[in-house]
Amino acid sequence: MRNRDDDEYGLLTALRRLREARPLVHNITNDVVMNVTANALLAAGASPAMVHAPEEAAEFVRVASALVVNIGTLTAPALEAMLAATAAAREGGIPWVLDPVAVGATRFRRDAVTRLLQARPTVVRGNASEVLAVATGVRAGRGVDADGASAEIAGLAASLARTTGAIVAVTGAVDIVTDGTRSFAITNGDPLLTRITGAGCTVTALVGAFLGAGRAPLEAATAALVLVGLAGERAAEGNPGPGTFQLRLLDTLAQITPEELAAGAKVRRV
Amino acid sequence: MRNRDDDEYGLLTALRRLREARPLVHNITNDVVMNVTANALLAAGASPAMVHAPEEAAEFVRVASALVVNIGTLTAPALEAMLAATAAAREGGIPWVLDPVAVGATRFRRDAVTRLLQARPTVVRGNASEVLAVATGVRAGRGVDADGASAEIAGLAASLARTTGAIVAVTGAVDIVTDGTRSFAITNGDPLLTRITGAGCTVTALVGAFLGAGRAPLEAATAALVLVGLAGERAAEGNPGPGTFQLRLLDTLAQITPEELAAGAKVRRV
Amino acid sequence: MRNRDDDEYGLLTALRRLREARPLVHNITNDVVMNVTANALLAAGASPAMVHAPEEAAEFVRVASALVVNIGTLTAPALEAMLAATAAAREGGIPWVLDPVAVGATRFRRDAVTRLLQARPTVVRGNASEVLAVATGVRAGRGVDADGASAEIAGLAASLARTTGAIVAVTGAVDIVTDGTRSFAITNGDPLLTRITGAGCTVTALVGAFLGAGRAPLEAATAALVLVGLAGERAAEGNPGPGTFQLRLLDTLAQITPEELAAGAKVRRV
Repeated sequence: MRNRDDDEYGLLTALRRLREARPLVHNITNDVVMNVTANALLAAGASPAMVHAPEEAAEFVRVASALVVNIGTLTAPALEAMLAATAAAREGGIPWVLDPVAVGATRFRRDAVTRLLQARPTVVRGNASEVLAVATGVRAGRGVDADGASAEIAGLAASLARTTGAIVAVTGAVDIVTDGTRSFAITNGDPLLTRITGAGCTVTALVGAFLGAGRAPLEAATAALVLVGLAGERAAEGNPGPGTFQLRLLDTLAQITPEELAAGAKVRRV
Repeated sequence: MRNRDDDEYGLLTALRRLREARPLVHNITNDVVMNVTANALLAAGASPAMVHAPEEAAEFVRVASALVVNIGTLTAPALEAMLAATAAAREGGIPWVLDPVAVGATRFRRDAVTRLLQARPTVVRGNASEVLAVATGVRAGRGVDADGASAEIAGLAASLARTTGAIVAVTGAVDIVTDGTRSFAITNGDPLLTRITGAGCTVTALVGAFLGAGRAPLEAATAALVLVGLAGERAAEGNPGPGTFQLRLLDTLAQITPEELAAGAKVRRV
Repeated sequence: MRNRDDDEYGLLTALRRLREARPLVHNITNDVVMNVTANALLAAGASPAMVHAPEEAAEFVRVASALVVNIGTLTAPALEAMLAATAAAREGGIPWVLDPVAVGATRFRRDAVTRLLQARPTVVRGNASEVLAVATGVRAGRGVDADGASAEIAGLAASLARTTGAIVAVTGAVDIVTDGTRSFAITNGDPLLTRITGAGCTVTALVGAFLGAGRAPLEAATAALVLVGLAGERAAEGNPGPGTFQLRLLDTLAQITPEELAAGAKVRRV
């Protein structure tokens, strides 16, 4: 049974606006997923730019519609660029998304995220162990893998949302998105999304795309989670290998219509 | 209707030579397209090397057949490597290609291109807004996207070619290649080339491959534009999604024969 | 005719253990293959992490099951991270693999490999010209391409294994793996593996995965060579283009069962 909840979650309008606005999304992201992120943004209808030098990141973000910061392969110069760009984004009223990849794994990452949170991200998107690490400051998880505990940490996510003022999106077998008061659970997706690198980073980038298209943060995060989840369901049809799945995911991101997004969404309030 | 203009533009011989020579193409390119560029060069028949540390770029270029410099994700160390390598290339008579990605977007990029032009690139390849920015020093465009104005800026491209001594190649709905006196318009291609990241960067790298195989600059640039355009046409058959299109583009780069290149070319003097 | 040599080379057990253990493999690898390496490790059943900042590489390796170091796009900061991580790996008894990409091409690479060898890699994996360059200190080859001379340098590889205490794996038309006393020749594979970038780097990463799953070094290297070779054979069926081949290689890495690996192996003692 599929929800028909376009009115409730604004999904149809969100994807329509994204494709009309074709927002310029500035990414300071990791070296592993840079190509996939650019292609996913293009496929979905946005216009990606990868600009990560400290010499130009703050200047560039001022012409972007949204900023995406992902610490997956963090380096000191990239962190410098992230701090400059997020400060400029905050100053300029440009929405920005933080993906605290493997934040619990090293002190370098924990310190970086502590500093980045001071520029008040619009949305934080991570897996359960990353959100746990951000929320508690405690080392959690063993690295970059998602575990299945997302649903259980909904309370922690809501608490983090209230503390930071950010929308918090937690991806896993069940995705959670929350502003600290309202929370949605999203069950779109397929296990193959965990067998390729960068599915979570793609969600993060698409949150940026929906923000750049002018959607409110809770709606933007919800739309990105549903879009990648639904694209994953379609790409997984026939149970292909992970290579074929990865390219089909790009195909489906381009092919899903606003109407299909709204019709295929599996969202419920929690 | 297809042109049969091998004699006129030397396309058949160009691709034959490329596959015989298997030239070593040294790339200092951007992080987004590094994998795709290496695979496109391999598919077309060249031998790619990505060497971008300042400590070794100048040493390495001396054993290469051509150098490709792309500022898509420019950093200060990469710029240092580019300046050293282009100086060594110029000194050693090694042809080199400049791709001024998003040059109009930031001061860092404009300054970098100004310095790189002093090492006299053999070919400059950009989209209309990039060529406009190089030619006029004026901020143009909003980033890395091509627009459809290539045909209109043919005059500006010819002027830039005369000023710099470089062949100038402008990609868009209609591609222009010019030495300042002779200009060709190329209409091979497909709109899907704008829905994946790195199609322009692939053209730039293949200009390097044809230069490395000993082709004259105008012929090398023409051959690269036709090859990617024709590969794009074939890869787009059946209107696949952008993921499938991207991999088919690599397939077709490998499969197109010299005879097919010459027969499928859509080139005219302008 | 296929070997049925699971008992002799431990291949069936190796792949079974890899998929059970899902080892965390820490990679400090090159920018060209980072995405492919992560996806290949995921496809085969391991858990990849790409962590290459000097600030965190040594800390991170202590929670990993194996470390992979690849100098393909070496930079000074990455070298600093490699030296710190390999020292920590050696101290912590964590196995590590060295891929000396294009080591003969520049002094920067030769010096880096000389320093890295002091941390005593568990396995060294290269093509013939790279292994020759490491073994002799002599400039050899013109860059990153494999040549077909692997079989001829079996003696040199065995000598390098005895000198360094590392297992040495040489990839080419015939792969060689040796501990200096015992040597195996592996003839799995397909020429298409040389038409995509990163096939050798994938072997290196999978050596790390088998080491991380607790396999002895000679067995780990053998299993990785057979797995990529067999996956290449299957991916090449029907002679696809290199783009299609690349994605099918990921598919087949995920789909090959331990039993198929043992049954499809073409290994002999030499």
